[in-house]
Amino acid sequence: MKYGGYAGKILRVDLTKGGTREEPLDEDAALKLLGGRGLAASILFRELKPKIDPLGPENKLIFMSGPLAGSGAPCTTRCAVVTKSPLTGIYLVTLAAGNFAGQLKAEGYDGIIVEGMAEKPVYVWLHEGKAEIRSAERYWGMMTEDTQTLLKEDLREDKIEVACVGPPGERLVQLASIISGRRAFGRGGAGAVMGSKKLKAVAVLSKQKPSIRIKNQEAYREAVSLAYKNIRENKATGQTFPKYGTPSLVLPMNEHGVLPTRNFQSGFFDKAELISGENMRTNYVVKDKACFACPIMCSKLTLARAGPYAGVLTEGPDYETIYSMGSECGNSNFDSIIAADRLCDDYGLDSISAGCAVAFAMECFERGILTTRDTDGIELHFGNHVALVELIGKMARREGFGDVLADGALKASRRIGRDSEKYVMHVKGMELPGYEPRGMKGMGLNYATACRGACHCRGYTVHSEIFRRNAPWPTEPFAYEGKGKLVNAIQDLRAVYDASIFCAFAQGAYSLDVPAKMLSAVIGVKLDEAELYRVGHRINTLERAFNVREGVTRKDDVLPERLLKEPMPEGASKGYVVELEPMLDEYYEQRGWNVETGIPTKVELKELGLADVAAELERLGLLK
Amino acid sequence: MKYGGYAGKILRVDLTKGGTREEPLDEDAALKLLGGRGLAASILFRELKPKIDPLGPENKLIFMSGPLAGSGAPCTTRCAVVTKSPLTGIYLVTLAAGNFAGQLKAEGYDGIIVEGMAEKPVYVWLHEGKAEIRSAERYWGMMTEDTQTLLKEDLREDKIEVACVGPPGERLVQLASIISGRRAFGRGGAGAVMGSKKLKAVAVLSKQKPSIRIKNQEAYREAVSLAYKNIRENKATGQTFPKYGTPSLVLPMNEHGVLPTRNFQSGFFDKAELISGENMRTNYVVKDKACFACPIMCSKLTLARAGPYAGVLTEGPDYETIYSMGSECGNSNFDSIIAADRLCDDYGLDSISAGCAVAFAMECFERGILTTRDTDGIELHFGNHVALVELIGKMARREGFGDVLADGALKASRRIGRDSEKYVMHVKGMELPGYEPRGMKGMGLNYATACRGACHCRGYTVHSEIFRRNAPWPTEPFAYEGKGKLVNAIQDLRAVYDASIFCAFAQGAYSLDVPAKMLSAVIGVKLDEAELYRVGHRINTLERAFNVREGVTRKDDVLPERLLKEPMPEGASKGYVVELEPMLDEYYEQRGWNVETGIPTKVELKELGLADVAAELERLGLLK
Repeated sequence: MKYGGYAGKILRVDLTKGGTREEPLDEDAALKLLGGRGLAASILFRELKPKIDPLGPENKLIFMSGPLAGSGAPCTTRCAVVTKSPLTGIYLVTLAAGNFAGQLKAEGYDGIIVEGMAEKPVYVWLHEGKAEIRSAERYWGMMTEDTQTLLKEDLREDKIEVACVGPPGERLVQLASIISGRRAFGRGGAGAVMGSKKLKAVAVLSKQKPSIRIKNQEAYREAVSLAYKNIRENKATGQTFPKYGTPSLVLPMNEHGVLPTRNFQSGFFDKAELISGENMRTNYVVKDKACFACPIMCSKLTLARAGPYAGVLTEGPDYETIYSMGSECGNSNFDSIIAADRLCDDYGLDSISAGCAVAFAMECFERGILTTRDTDGIELHFGNHVALVELIGKMARREGFGDVLADGALKASRRIGRDSEKYVMHVKGMELPGYEPRGMKGMGLNYATACRGACHCRGYTVHSEIFRRNAPWPTEPFAYEGKGKLVNAIQDLRAVYDASIFCAFAQGAYSLDVPAKMLSAVIGVKLDEAELYRVGHRINTLERAFNVREGVTRKDDVLPERLLKEPMPEGASKGYVVELEPMLDEYYEQRGWNVETGIPTKVELKELGLADVAAELERLGLLK
Repeated sequence: MKYGGYAGKILRVDLTKGGTREEPLDEDAALKLLGGRGLAASILFRELKPKIDPLGPENKLIFMSGPLAGSGAPCTTRCAVVTKSPLTGIYLVTLAAGNFAGQLKAEGYDGIIVEGMAEKPVYVWLHEGKAEIRSAERYWGMMTEDTQTLLKEDLREDKIEVACVGPPGERLVQLASIISGRRAFGRGGAGAVMGSKKLKAVAVLSKQKPSIRIKNQEAYREAVSLAYKNIRENKATGQTFPKYGTPSLVLPMNEHGVLPTRNFQSGFFDKAELISGENMRTNYVVKDKACFACPIMCSKLTLARAGPYAGVLTEGPDYETIYSMGSECGNSNFDSIIAADRLCDDYGLDSISAGCAVAFAMECFERGILTTRDTDGIELHFGNHVALVELIGKMARREGFGDVLADGALKASRRIGRDSEKYVMHVKGMELPGYEPRGMKGMGLNYATACRGACHCRGYTVHSEIFRRNAPWPTEPFAYEGKGKLVNAIQDLRAVYDASIFCAFAQGAYSLDVPAKMLSAVIGVKLDEAELYRVGHRINTLERAFNVREGVTRKDDVLPERLLKEPMPEGASKGYVVELEPMLDEYYEQRGWNVETGIPTKVELKELGLADVAAELERLGLLK
């Protein structure tokens, strides 16, 4: 491997045959796509046949670190999981912080490609240069925390990093997540893919040593100093997140009328105070936690104090879970949000989609589409937190009405019928995250176009549309002009961070020159901001090509009708809807995609160095 | 310290003043009473004023190892906790296995005496020769498993041993236990005493090194070999317990008509098969676990598979919990018993008494003494396992009807009134364990006389009355003659094991010559069987003196009326009641206690070397 930053090897695990082998990292691809989300997207595109069953043996599950993972620089502890999603049927990338990626690198691998399907439960154990596939029958059926504890006990190693699934993953619940430590690869049902392969866990022995080669140490140290300085000086990462974590967003979002409430019936929650970061800090936080070498400490351990939840500890909840289990369900009982968060982590269930699926069911219940005869006798009114917590367990175990919701709100609506689909707040089958597009239209465009369906992470417009001061490209939230350009830029920016592999907060604290300097120093190839934007554009276009191959076109880049037609009834976004179509026109144009179809053009693909991708789409008759 | 086996120091922790100090171990007392239960009983008698409030600052909480703890010999990992019980108002000893005692010794202490009461939550941290009292505000309110995990994280030490309480201990629930690892100091509410002192935890850094001086290494090795040989050759410890653990007892007890069922309304459970050790082994066990250096591996990790409990892992359940949460509640749902066991451990709640309190409430409910208006709407029928699991949480949190049961069945009956007290199956306020005295009368006598109230551990007659083959002193279970002598011998034997400090299973596997040889070798003083029986007799008499000082006399050595007057309705014990009075006569006579009052005589006390105890009782006018 001539570049720094990479371990230079990929581990391929064939669960059907029960073997593993090492492959050299594709150096050209690494330079074109960095690592993480970028490199993994390229592997998934090349290796997956179109239209395969996400829960069948032909799907692959890729764990991928990036060139900065294991460098010790701040905000570089993430790992990407890339696969075809059972929830959406399209491309899925989901990232989690923690120590998994760093230890994978220390063990000598940039990533793991898991393919095939084991007959009986197994786990993969990476230690001291060996990769073993071992029986996991003992752990099958266990919750994620017990699985990790017992693996450590059985392997007689306190210091191992584990990524594993719980009962939802095993039961192919399409909202199942993969858990590592107390962090989740949350969205899109990657846990179900892992479960379908009968892969309970991947365990890596932790070496606690620096794990990568850095080509230019001095430049690296300078870039790291700059990163720390930027983090310190940025108000969010230097002051707000250390104190409140992402729940600091609850009150400002509510004030701007963009805190989704009661299944997006409103963007204003009258009890937001009770679920705010300020209330959490004062009454619930017991400890601030940081990932390795991170000065931000965004993570908060909280302890439920009252009612049936008293005594429950969780790492979190973050803003998204507070939205999905809180305002979105009309629930202001913070203790129950803590309990819901812990349950989701312990089972291995996406806390965003799980809460949203319940919110959807609550709206159906209140409209009489569902009755207690459908819900196992549960009175599913908005604000019924006991019902919410009970349903999470039922979804995780596919029990009774929980089985109806277990594969997400869209599939639930198809089982429920009775015109319920119009109350499903989703894009491409994925439940909406915690920002109301009627009050920040760029976010709506991002939901409609993001590679994995409704996703805030892939194009986080909050700085530019809500906070604006000191943000890149500040824009008017209720305007739709210029949002195509904005979302292009932000989606490209994020793709670079997801490939490098940086945490989301880095994106808020740095401009792209910090990653440019850090990557140049580590890899040993000069990368400037313009080149990195091109990498981001390349990744987004490649992922789009994957989705196009699965049938996605402009017709799928939509938002729930409610957001397009029902003016926001109250709050600061009162009266607004989302003007999606003109934003899409601008977006595709900026991307260099066909504006009518939303399919990347051959010219653009070649220009981005994706000629092989163009050829594949052409072969399938998808490039007109 | 001239003897081997002892560290030679006691740590005294004064929580009122916030200080700690070391004291030399009383060598004379150690030779007369060994350690553990014996030595701690003597400290409690000397240091506690009579009639103090068990939950007030004058009570003390003693953690005590014994001369064999930390020796590495099999079955020597236990620790004794001794205090005055809030549940019974009398003497309490409760023992747990694990690594706490061994590490306490390695840290240089034979025991810890905790006195006074902190103003704010604290924990004690013993490491590298230092004893620190630290703030535990962060951990207050947490469950026991999270408390241990977080302490390890915060102290940056994976290898520490922790004894801690959960929400029940903090809320002074009189069924609260103390948890160390996944083991419980279960009975009598020691957790409430710890909670009343605002002592969340004691943490000891684990040195992983041999921790005691052995005076005669060769004799010690010989004794250890003999112990291993006995364990191997004994059917229970060599074959049955390694495979099934104590749940192996379920079917034989049921067959003999002594498996208490539906609050002791029967000794036969028609669904015993479903809660048997055999069913557990086949369908639920995921791992066998052993304490350090123990070949028995009696402990089983089990995983719930079905229903709302699917995914719950626990260490256990042991026979007692299967009885209390199973047959005693008319419950044959094994998954729910696993869930109940985990909840009890995670909250820190005595699983025997908790199950029995629910069983009592179930009988009241079925008799119409309680209705859903009393029980927060819960249909409290026998066999309602959902209600059982729900009530455990409510008891742990003192919530609604759970608060009524939280201090045990006797106190609950006093709040309920309506003549419910006659359905409380207790002795001296402590709920009955899992052996039906009408079918093994010696066990009835033991319940009536044991130092902490109804307790199977202090005089376990099962080998002698039920299995009989190869047992010491085999006797006819339905006979009452000779049981006074039998229970004397077994209680004395057990006192020696509890002081040495041996696990209960050693008692089944060895005759007393093994402990005699092992203790002689370690301590360096020749101790033969006769002398050890005398030590056991001394301990039992000293504990009785403590209880006499609290007001206990023969009038308190009783059994629930049901066992004395209602003939067993079915099963192998059909038609029998317990003839308690003649057994008591024989028992006191054998003990050398006054047969009329049940108070030890002055002559006997002096003869046992307890002249100071005699003087104290005399001073109080209790020796007639």
